[in-house]
Amino acid sequence: MQKPSIPKGTRDFSPVEMMRRNYIFDTVKRVFRLYGFAPLETPSMENLSTLLGKYGDEGDKLLFKILNSGDYAAALSDDEVRQASKICEKGLRYDLTVPFARYVVQHQGELAFPFKRYQVQPVWRADRPQKGRYREFYQCDVDVIGTRSLLCEVELVEIVDRVFRALGIRVALKMNNRKILYGIAETIGHADKMTDITVAIDKLEKIGLDNVKAELLERGLEPEAVARLQPILELSGGNRQKLDALRAVIGASETGLKGIEEMETVLGYVERLGLGLQVDLDLSLARGLNYYTGAIFEVKALDFAIGSICGGGRYDDLTGIFGMPNVSGVGISFGADRIYDVMTGLNLFPEEVSSSTRVLFVNLGAEEEAASLGLLRTLRDAGIAAEIYPEAGKMKKQMEYANRRAVPYVAIVGSQEIEAQAVTLKDMRSGEQRQVPFAGLAECLK
Amino acid sequence: MQKPSIPKGTRDFSPVEMMRRNYIFDTVKRVFRLYGFAPLETPSMENLSTLLGKYGDEGDKLLFKILNSGDYAAALSDDEVRQASKICEKGLRYDLTVPFARYVVQHQGELAFPFKRYQVQPVWRADRPQKGRYREFYQCDVDVIGTRSLLCEVELVEIVDRVFRALGIRVALKMNNRKILYGIAETIGHADKMTDITVAIDKLEKIGLDNVKAELLERGLEPEAVARLQPILELSGGNRQKLDALRAVIGASETGLKGIEEMETVLGYVERLGLGLQVDLDLSLARGLNYYTGAIFEVKALDFAIGSICGGGRYDDLTGIFGMPNVSGVGISFGADRIYDVMTGLNLFPEEVSSSTRVLFVNLGAEEEAASLGLLRTLRDAGIAAEIYPEAGKMKKQMEYANRRAVPYVAIVGSQEIEAQAVTLKDMRSGEQRQVPFAGLAECLK
Repeated sequence: MQKPSIPKGTRDFSPVEMMRRNYIFDTVKRVFRLYGFAPLETPSMENLSTLLGKYGDEGDKLLFKILNSGDYAAALSDDEVRQASKICEKGLRYDLTVPFARYVVQHQGELAFPFKRYQVQPVWRADRPQKGRYREFYQCDVDVIGTRSLLCEVELVEIVDRVFRALGIRVALKMNNRKILYGIAETIGHADKMTDITVAIDKLEKIGLDNVKAELLERGLEPEAVARLQPILELSGGNRQKLDALRAVIGASETGLKGIEEMETVLGYVERLGLGLQVDLDLSLARGLNYYTGAIFEVKALDFAIGSICGGGRYDDLTGIFGMPNVSGVGISFGADRIYDVMTGLNLFPEEVSSSTRVLFVNLGAEEEAASLGLLRTLRDAGIAAEIYPEAGKMKKQMEYANRRAVPYVAIVGSQEIEAQAVTLKDMRSGEQRQVPFAGLAECLK
Repeated sequence: MQKPSIPKGTRDFSPVEMMRRNYIFDTVKRVFRLYGFAPLETPSMENLSTLLGKYGDEGDKLLFKILNSGDYAAALSDDEVRQASKICEKGLRYDLTVPFARYVVQHQGELAFPFKRYQVQPVWRADRPQKGRYREFYQCDVDVIGTRSLLCEVELVEIVDRVFRALGIRVALKMNNRKILYGIAETIGHADKMTDITVAIDKLEKIGLDNVKAELLERGLEPEAVARLQPILELSGGNRQKLDALRAVIGASETGLKGIEEMETVLGYVERLGLGLQVDLDLSLARGLNYYTGAIFEVKALDFAIGSICGGGRYDDLTGIFGMPNVSGVGISFGADRIYDVMTGLNLFPEEVSSSTRVLFVNLGAEEEAASLGLLRTLRDAGIAAEIYPEAGKMKKQMEYANRRAVPYVAIVGSQEIEAQAVTLKDMRSGEQRQVPFAGLAECLK
């Protein structure tokens, strides 16, 4: 018989991986809750009409479609069967943003706005599997929708600060504002070329100023427009300096000015809060998603080379696609897989996260087992994860089991221990053994 | 534009529903961990070869199949396209048991046996949607595999006791043993008719003794066999009495006797543990799943009419289907949806479970906001979920928002409060207001 396997691009998460992942998820969710965000879950399947056309042509191709159940193809012509639209009405969700927008529109009458929700669920994409890219992966999204208040942006910055401090990851937060990017494009007379310009700015670090300028010319900008862009490409200094310089160049663009003011407001709040987090205005930050209309965010780990581990922004019309226009929101998404990789790479998981059991009782036979069961009950009542090896057997085998499970303490209850009413407690890391009275065991293991 | 919707049989879980569901999941997982069970997750999609043939013909029809991605149908004939097997290689998991077995076989070299895992994930079934039956629902499974020790059965009984005590649900646990059922069938000379006999016993309460006997005759049992079965159908009294009576009738069946002994061992342990839980031997308990070979369990709520809310049993060859024979395990599954219904029906959710924020600061303008932001930071540092209404605006609107979100406390920080360095704190349930010094707010809200 062939050894069973799983579909390519999917993963099993072993107990140790799960405990570490849960440590991340629990931290993120705990922080979300501190800020008043409440959990939401949407179905894994959405109607294809909800999903199609929301992620561009490329995205449509990456949707996993679910075959209609029942004798779906019986009444269809061969051509109809070949059109997936006739045999599939449902697809697996591609992200958490579109289902969130769909939820808000569908339940608008029941919701209290501003609506603050977090959502931690898997999404599916039929991408070609490769290192670090999976066909099923979790997203951790937090959004507030129904207000334009910039306090929400500030709150997200605080959340970023608190999450990564709790996880022990040093990060830098890059911020930009789509209105500034639009202002730049407008100022040089190419409001229609905002995407080309931001793509070019984004390449600045990689290919250098001269190549970026050459590329802009190629994309149809006049030499004068490129010349006017130059001071922006050469912006340097702190956030305040950059904003002042920007104001001098694009201050005549109403939208651009609005973007500068928004950025100043948010940065002003952040400064007054005195966060440890480094927040940098970065004009090269564009973020691909075309629904962003205001602030955009991206977080990078300082001590580990990997792409962004968190990002997001403000959108002014996400629910418009479902017929509910002019509802502004802002949100960010934490990349659990990359955060996991950073924490593994920097050895940041606390040791106790990776073991499920605090103490294992070896099983030495019926009488010893009976004594152990009473102690186990006391420990569990005290909230201490404890277990007994289920079969009496060789001590060596039981010790090996404790080792493989990374159980930090082993309790030995033999006839001597029963007589003395004291457990022999072995610290599996140091190998040290000591006697602990039955009555003091819970306290000792806390 | 049409209001968006979700596929039939699926659900959105609103924040309040989610917080209540999480209360159940968190309780269940916390108890699982107390007993040394560790989390596991498997992919939502499995290869169809893993799933097909594992749930009977009916089950195969209820699998959700996922269309191969890419230009799947281009090179196929029309007939091939009509065969789902050619256009679908993956399906959504139908339960957590088969993926668990697949995982154990696939990763047998890495696992420490006995392997104790819990798994809380959604499963999908293309059942006809109806009240209380969904196409996507969560299962909460806990299993130990790789040992025949009856201590595992005892541990599961303890887990049932601890979970439902923590949730405040009074329950009764029914137990039976497939070996006893086989012993009965063997004793009356119809080892092959075990299913018919257990189905008949199962109907005892519903249709009465005479009808059950009639049905057994119809199913091909001789009158003498039915007569020999009669004392078993009429068993009464406590567990010990029933077991003694059973021993008298089926004691000559080796398997039956083994079942009786197993039951006695487990019940003996449970008695000595002194659990509050009522555990009853119930011969009418059969449980449909044909992979059970030893103990079987079923839990019912005592104060709410609904089907079983938890169940499971021992299986001696679950991994055999994937080529790894003779590995015994035992597990139970908690039905989150039904437990949710019981808790809602009996009003068992603690009030604080249903609100995400402990205190909302009203927003009275720039200066007041600045004072509030400092307080918010202190509260969050103390682990208290707190938020500020993001826009300055009418007090009434902000109070309504707090009410709709079920926030228990509202903090008012106006110019007077800033001068006095004391918040006006309103208890939203009683309507009572009092002054709390800034420095004492966290302590007061804990």
